[in-house]
Amino acid sequence: MAERGELTCAEYDRIKIMPTPLFSPPTYRRRLRAVQAEMQRRGVDILLVADPANMYYLSAYDGWSFYVPQCLIVLAKGEAPLWWGRGIDLAGARRTVWMEEDALFGYSDDYVHNPPHHPGEHLAQTLTDLSNGRGTVGYESETFYFTPALLHSVQANAPQLSWQDADGLVNWQRAVKEEEEIAHMRQAGRLVAAMHDTALAVAAVGVQKHKIAAAVYQTAIAGVPDIYGDYAAIVPMLPAGADAAAPHLTWDDTPLAENSGMFLELAGCYRRYHCPLARTIFCGTPPSKWRAAEAALIEGIAACMAAAKPQAVCGDVARALTRTLKKQGFDKQGRCGYSIGIGYPPDWGERTMSLRPQDETPLQAGMTFHLMPGLWLEDWGIEITESIVITKTGCEALANVERRLFVV
Amino acid sequence: MAERGELTCAEYDRIKIMPTPLFSPPTYRRRLRAVQAEMQRRGVDILLVADPANMYYLSAYDGWSFYVPQCLIVLAKGEAPLWWGRGIDLAGARRTVWMEEDALFGYSDDYVHNPPHHPGEHLAQTLTDLSNGRGTVGYESETFYFTPALLHSVQANAPQLSWQDADGLVNWQRAVKEEEEIAHMRQAGRLVAAMHDTALAVAAVGVQKHKIAAAVYQTAIAGVPDIYGDYAAIVPMLPAGADAAAPHLTWDDTPLAENSGMFLELAGCYRRYHCPLARTIFCGTPPSKWRAAEAALIEGIAACMAAAKPQAVCGDVARALTRTLKKQGFDKQGRCGYSIGIGYPPDWGERTMSLRPQDETPLQAGMTFHLMPGLWLEDWGIEITESIVITKTGCEALANVERRLFVV
Repeated sequence: MAERGELTCAEYDRIKIMPTPLFSPPTYRRRLRAVQAEMQRRGVDILLVADPANMYYLSAYDGWSFYVPQCLIVLAKGEAPLWWGRGIDLAGARRTVWMEEDALFGYSDDYVHNPPHHPGEHLAQTLTDLSNGRGTVGYESETFYFTPALLHSVQANAPQLSWQDADGLVNWQRAVKEEEEIAHMRQAGRLVAAMHDTALAVAAVGVQKHKIAAAVYQTAIAGVPDIYGDYAAIVPMLPAGADAAAPHLTWDDTPLAENSGMFLELAGCYRRYHCPLARTIFCGTPPSKWRAAEAALIEGIAACMAAAKPQAVCGDVARALTRTLKKQGFDKQGRCGYSIGIGYPPDWGERTMSLRPQDETPLQAGMTFHLMPGLWLEDWGIEITESIVITKTGCEALANVERRLFVV
Repeated sequence: MAERGELTCAEYDRIKIMPTPLFSPPTYRRRLRAVQAEMQRRGVDILLVADPANMYYLSAYDGWSFYVPQCLIVLAKGEAPLWWGRGIDLAGARRTVWMEEDALFGYSDDYVHNPPHHPGEHLAQTLTDLSNGRGTVGYESETFYFTPALLHSVQANAPQLSWQDADGLVNWQRAVKEEEEIAHMRQAGRLVAAMHDTALAVAAVGVQKHKIAAAVYQTAIAGVPDIYGDYAAIVPMLPAGADAAAPHLTWDDTPLAENSGMFLELAGCYRRYHCPLARTIFCGTPPSKWRAAEAALIEGIAACMAAAKPQAVCGDVARALTRTLKKQGFDKQGRCGYSIGIGYPPDWGERTMSLRPQDETPLQAGMTFHLMPGLWLEDWGIEITESIVITKTGCEALANVERRLFVV
C-alpha cells in the first residue's frame, strides 16, 4: 500500500541530508562556552535550563516530554550540559542528544503526579550531589515548563543552595543566528510558502474553516521536495469575518462567507526552526477600506525592511511602521514584531527583543524577526507579515510569498 | 475553487449543532458554585485559574493566548468568573465566554515581554481593587501557564494579600464528567478511530513517518461526518523501530523498515475534549515475542476493564494489569493510566487521578481515563490502549478501534 514515489530505505540513506543531532559537537561546545561565560558574569554556578527551545539549542534534546519536569543542568565548568528528566524519557534523550550516557539523569515514575512526592526532590538531590552542597543556582522564571511547584520543591529540598532568577540567559545567546540556523529558517520559509499556497487553493466561499486548517496541516508536515515539516509551536490561526478582530482564536467549522476576509497566521517548522508568516484572503471584492489597509501594510513592511539593518535599533523598525501607517490614516502603536528561531509550544517567539519603540537593542547581522504589522480593527482584521533576517547591509525576507491581499 | 460537497452558509446554519459557548449558563454556574464551595473549605477568597483547561471548563474561553499571562479570577461570592488577560485577546474572550462584558479585564501590550514591566503588576492592581486589599489568594502552582515570574510579580505588587497553593482545586472538580461531556468525548473517539484508520491505510514498508503524520493530521482536523476536529493537546506520536523504546519522540522522515513496529499514540479532540488511543503497526511478520506482548496487553486491558467500576479504586485497575502481565512474563510496575477530558498543550491528562497501585481514589460513574498499558522494552515498544468511561455498573470504551496488533 506504499504511496507512489516513496523511497526504499537504501535510497533514503543515500539522500538523507540531516545528521542527528542537528549540529556538530563543536557547535554545541561553542554555545555552551558562551552560556558559561554569561553564567560567570552573573555569578551563577549551576544553571537549570527548562525552556525546551533552550534545551534543544544546547543539547539537541527533542521530545514531547516537557509536560513533566525536565531540564538541562549546566555547570559553570562542565564540558557538556547534563540532561535531567523522567526515567522513561532517557531513551529519547539517548537518541537525540550529543552528550554521553554519563550526562543523563532520570527520575522514577513514582514522582509523577503522585503527591506529596515531586520530581523536585530528585532534582534537589542531584544538585546537592553535583555541587557539594554549595553555590548559586540560576533558573528560568518564565519558561512555562519550570513551574512554581518545581521551584518550591527543589528549593525546600536543597536549602543550602542559593537561587537567582536567570530567565532569558540562554534565550539572549540565541539572538544572533549561525549560518546553519539561518539555512534551517529558510527551509521553514519554503514550508510556510507551500502552506499559504495550499490555503489559497482550498479557500472559497462556503468552505468550512477546519477544511482549510486540515489541508494546511497536511502540507506543513508532508513538506516540500527533500524536506519534511515538524509541528509548529503554534497551531494555524485562521479567524475569519468578525472573528478576525480576535487574533488568537483557532478554527471551527464556520464556512467562509461572501464579502469577508480571513487571515492566516502560519509558520513552517523545520527541525524546530520556525518561519512565521501571515497573509489575508478576502472572499469577494474587497471594499476600499480593505484595499487601503492592504496598501498601508505593504508600504509599512517596506519601510520596516528599509529600517532594519545593522547600526539601527529595534525601535527604529517600529517607528518606521508607525510613521508610515500614520501617513495612511492608521494608528498603530506598540509592538510590531519579535525575535524568532527555535520554538516549542506554546510560542515560537524567543522572548527577547521586541520591535517596539522603546526597545533600543542594536540590530546585528544574523538576528531574525517576525515583522508583524497586523491591523486588528473593530469588526475585521488584516495581517500581512514577513519573517526577516538582518544581513551585513540590511535585511532579507526568509520566505518568498507574494506580499498582497489575496482575493478568491 | 470550492471543494465539491462543501456547504452553503444557509445549509450550514441549518445543520450546525453546537452552540457557542459549548454549554448553557446554568451548567457553568453549577460548576462555579462547586469550585466556590471548595474554595470556602480551603479558606481561599480569590482563586486564580490559569490552566487553560480549567479556564475553558469554567468560562468557555478558548484561544491560543496562554503564552502570555492570563487567568480567570474566581471570587468566593461572585456570580461569574472574571476573565483577565492581554488586551488584544479581549475580542477573543468576548466571542467565546458566557460572561458579560463587565467580567473582562485586559492589560496593555506595554506589559508584554518588556522588562522591568510585567503583567503581574496589572494583575496585582486588579486583585487589590477587587479585594479591598485583604484576603487569601489561591493559585495553581503546576499549571505551566502561571509562571514563577508571574507569581513573584503579583506577590510583590500586592503585598497585603495572603497566598495559598491551590493547584488541582479546579482539576479535581472536572474528574466526574457530565453526560454532555461524555458525549463530546465519544465524538473525540470517532475522530481517533478515523485517525487510526488513516494511519493503517497509509503505513507500509518504505513510507516515511512524516507522511503518516501528515495524513493523520488531515483526518484529525477534517473530521468525520457532521463534526470537525480540534488540535489535540499533544501531537501525534509515532516512533518506529528502535526509537519505539522512546515513548515521546515525534516524527522524522525515516521510512518504515521491514520487520519493525511503529506505535501510534493519537488523540481525537472535539471541542477541546480528548479521546487518546494507541495502537501498534508491524511491518512484516511479527516475531513471537511481539505476538506474546500483544496477547499480554489484550488480556491486560480486559482485566483492567473488568476491574474498573464503581466501588473499586484506581489502584485496583493498576494491580489487575500488573497481575495479568506478570502471568504472561512481563514485569510492568507503576502508572498505567490517568484521568482525561479537556486538554490544551502540552498535556491531555487532567493531573489528578492516576491508575497506579498507590492511588486509592474511589472510581465513580462518569470518570474517564486513558488506560495505557504500554510495554517499552530495550529496543522495541508496543502500545495498545483504550480510553474508558466508568459507568454505573462497570466501564465502557470511548472509541471503537479493533484491539490488536495491526500488521501491514
